[in-house]
Amino acid sequence: MTQLWLLPEYIEDVLPEAAWQIEASRTAVLSLFRSHGYDLVIPPHIEYLESLTGGVSDDLDLKTFKLVDQLSGRMLGLRADMTPQVARIDAHLLNREGITRLCYAGHVVHTRPNGHLSSREPLQLGAELYGSTTHEADVEVIGLAVEALKVLGVPQVQVDLGHVGIFRALCRAAGVSGLAQDDLFAALQLKDQPTIERLTADWPADLQSGMRALPTLFGDAAVLQAAAERLPALPDIQQGLASLGTLADVLQQQGMNVSIELGELRTGKYHNGLVFSVFADGWPNPVARGGRYDNMGQMFGRARPATGFSLDLRDILRGLPCGKLPRSILAPQQMDAALQDTVAQLRAQGEVVIRDLGEGAPVTSHQLCLQDGQWLVLPRA
Amino acid sequence: MTQLWLLPEYIEDVLPEAAWQIEASRTAVLSLFRSHGYDLVIPPHIEYLESLTGGVSDDLDLKTFKLVDQLSGRMLGLRADMTPQVARIDAHLLNREGITRLCYAGHVVHTRPNGHLSSREPLQLGAELYGSTTHEADVEVIGLAVEALKVLGVPQVQVDLGHVGIFRALCRAAGVSGLAQDDLFAALQLKDQPTIERLTADWPADLQSGMRALPTLFGDAAVLQAAAERLPALPDIQQGLASLGTLADVLQQQGMNVSIELGELRTGKYHNGLVFSVFADGWPNPVARGGRYDNMGQMFGRARPATGFSLDLRDILRGLPCGKLPRSILAPQQMDAALQDTVAQLRAQGEVVIRDLGEGAPVTSHQLCLQDGQWLVLPRA
Repeated sequence: MTQLWLLPEYIEDVLPEAAWQIEASRTAVLSLFRSHGYDLVIPPHIEYLESLTGGVSDDLDLKTFKLVDQLSGRMLGLRADMTPQVARIDAHLLNREGITRLCYAGHVVHTRPNGHLSSREPLQLGAELYGSTTHEADVEVIGLAVEALKVLGVPQVQVDLGHVGIFRALCRAAGVSGLAQDDLFAALQLKDQPTIERLTADWPADLQSGMRALPTLFGDAAVLQAAAERLPALPDIQQGLASLGTLADVLQQQGMNVSIELGELRTGKYHNGLVFSVFADGWPNPVARGGRYDNMGQMFGRARPATGFSLDLRDILRGLPCGKLPRSILAPQQMDAALQDTVAQLRAQGEVVIRDLGEGAPVTSHQLCLQDGQWLVLPRA
Repeated sequence: MTQLWLLPEYIEDVLPEAAWQIEASRTAVLSLFRSHGYDLVIPPHIEYLESLTGGVSDDLDLKTFKLVDQLSGRMLGLRADMTPQVARIDAHLLNREGITRLCYAGHVVHTRPNGHLSSREPLQLGAELYGSTTHEADVEVIGLAVEALKVLGVPQVQVDLGHVGIFRALCRAAGVSGLAQDDLFAALQLKDQPTIERLTADWPADLQSGMRALPTLFGDAAVLQAAAERLPALPDIQQGLASLGTLADVLQQQGMNVSIELGELRTGKYHNGLVFSVFADGWPNPVARGGRYDNMGQMFGRARPATGFSLDLRDILRGLPCGKLPRSILAPQQMDAALQDTVAQLRAQGEVVIRDLGEGAPVTSHQLCLQDGQWLVLPRA
């Protein structure tokens, strides 16, 4: 017989100390989102497969577990990303005019881990802003990501800005789309220069040198000047570079540590404009990522400008010291009314009071003792 | 093309007002559990199928969505119940001596709804107490369930006590097990008297009349006297009735509204002793249920006494008035340092401050206005 306590690879339980820390952090980040006007939504864990992945990306489809719905006979997916769900809620269900701010927190499940250090079950928290095309919306979302990380105990971060629109403008000008574009996207993600060269071998010279230059165009805001010289002067590219310049300025004025990385395409394939990744010392992967995905609402019946970010709370907390459990107080087995009142008061104050059940009393740091007719909390011998 | 915004049957999104209420209630109930010494654990959404359902019950197996693990080629299940997961953590992973108290909160997913009013995605919160065979442990768990309901806004409840051990003792004495016992269990759950009569047709007279009497033995504690007369005097039955008597006494002394229902088998099939369901006016199904499942740890390598309960937070909140969102304050688009300080202070105090992004300003009840050099929160015209 198989050992039934074994878990699948890249799947794990969270035990008490880490679990309380996750719970407290989750609440703190959601409170932050709320204080900025982001409304909570709770999308389901399963949906029709096309709603979760339709028209979005092969990558997301590969990451999504498939299930058969016994009620409809149709294929369901176990969500691997919550952003498309929230875009659906904004586009169809809420259907509000003007700007809508939404946030969420929930587990997503991946068929395969993103890397050897990743879990297949990230706890995704995120905030999304719909209905605004302005830079201010992007600044707000990036600022909120940085504040959320501060709340979690990650104060020193670096924000890498990229722009998927520049990559797409080059592809469009070269007449490349579909699978060929996907291959190039993947090569760029891996910074696989030989493959990039092979895939652009028959491109016009200016587009070819532009695409090949993308992975080399990173650094501080000065790199935007170099980019303007090395990339072809297509309107979408000039607009993308101008956006990045404006954003970098504003974020730096707000005290953020910003760099530009035009080959940075680590975000979801549904992004179509500004993208960003936030890095911090001690975490091999970005601690938050996000960007613009203006065209997603269309598939749910209403095109909407959209910008947002998400983070994996469990991944972030793995890189932080574990939270300490609060003190716990043992209450005697026999309870009279006075003791019951004392216990209820202590619990209402947030203290942990554990009742002795007369067998195998739990390990606690303190206990309730009767002294001179009063119940007192004393350190346990 | 299918309408991508359609959700599967018995699956739904939760929108802001209800979502914030669920979030606040979740936090409040987990704080209650914590104050009673229950440690939080977070089990995964997917596990090897046998770990989730193995040796437990057909019903749970039918409710569990199956997935293929690309990493191992083995069959996974999407959890339909968290209690077996928590039993696994207690038995194997924590492996603590003595009494262990654990709690959890998370979504489970069912292949089919329990009924026409049920969701396929309950939000299961629960508390489990391992390592104690005492009545005090059962009293603690039932008391905690009632307190949790009070925290949620369900103050008036009735606790129905049953005992699966009595049913099992009758089956054992009649030499009935396996599928035949399952059929009888199902018939009893449905109070389907003709089927009960058919399935016990060739039983010895005392066992037959005992089993047929079970669905009729309900009411206040006086019914235990009638049960002692109508049920055969098997040791397990006498012990079960005595347990129920003791429990009913203690719970009534604590001010609870208790009734006995010996045909009450609405709980999980893994229960093996005392079981209970908590009812409240306005909810067609029990608002909480639980009981003893002493033998479950065995399948994870360590037999442990176990008692606990769980509730579906989403189901309970559907029966309550919706929470009101707090007031929201609009902040002007242009921010100077003084305004930024004011906004940060308001947010730190728990206020919702939404920044105007210059297009489609959101609907808020209040706004920040500059009067005599000071930023004030005023009702919006």
